[in-house]
Amino acid sequence: MESELKRGFLVRQRAFLKLYLLKMIEANKRYGTQFLDDLRTEFKPYGYHPTHSEIYKTLHELTREGWVRREKKLLGEPGVDFQEIIIYHLTDKGKQEYELYRKQMKVEFDRCLGLLNQAMSDHYGPIKRK
Amino acid sequence: MESELKRGFLVRQRAFLKLYLLKMIEANKRYGTQFLDDLRTEFKPYGYHPTHSEIYKTLHELTREGWVRREKKLLGEPGVDFQEIIIYHLTDKGKQEYELYRKQMKVEFDRCLGLLNQAMSDHYGPIKRK
Repeated sequence: MESELKRGFLVRQRAFLKLYLLKMIEANKRYGTQFLDDLRTEFKPYGYHPTHSEIYKTLHELTREGWVRREKKLLGEPGVDFQEIIIYHLTDKGKQEYELYRKQMKVEFDRCLGLLNQAMSDHYGPIKRK
Repeated sequence: MESELKRGFLVRQRAFLKLYLLKMIEANKRYGTQFLDDLRTEFKPYGYHPTHSEIYKTLHELTREGWVRREKKLLGEPGVDFQEIIIYHLTDKGKQEYELYRKQMKVEFDRCLGLLNQAMSDHYGPIKRK
């Protein structure tokens, strides 16, 4: 998954969402719509509203890379009223890769915070910290 | 210039560079290559290397919107060895718009810092500040 970690301007949305999804899948919050609702609530104070499509593309990528395994389940009474849902699990590979990815993303977040704080200082004067 | 300010994930590169270019043009650092060199030096500690193309697209946009005026100048001895260069100036409209844009971008930077600090806290524990 080098493409998302390649340094450029700021952290890419795909890499940012991937980290959150790995965390949620590990914590057994495993339904697609749960992910979307939880992330939208989490980011609402910051005016960021991730799209359905962006979340699902990220989940597909994690599945394709073998970090995540999809499991189909039926809810309700078979033959009466039932619904097929997808549950996501971390694979063994995914558990290992998540640990590494988490560390790499910390470096990336520090870099981005540095760049934004530099811009704040350049345009609005030195940052005052108590 | 609403498109760049539209809130989404993080501040867009174009909006970020626009703010820097307006500041540099106002401060009379007026050559295209000077902009590029100065910005690359400024952002080097953060692993961000803006491209020639991105800088020139931003300058063109500022010109097209009437915030910036281009002036062609000849350097050297006409008829002997001379070079045509472009010098950039803020227009009266540009001076006004720059003030407003600077304020809007402050709000945008605060939002992005909030989102990144939230991610830091979610993935690596609460931020410790002395």
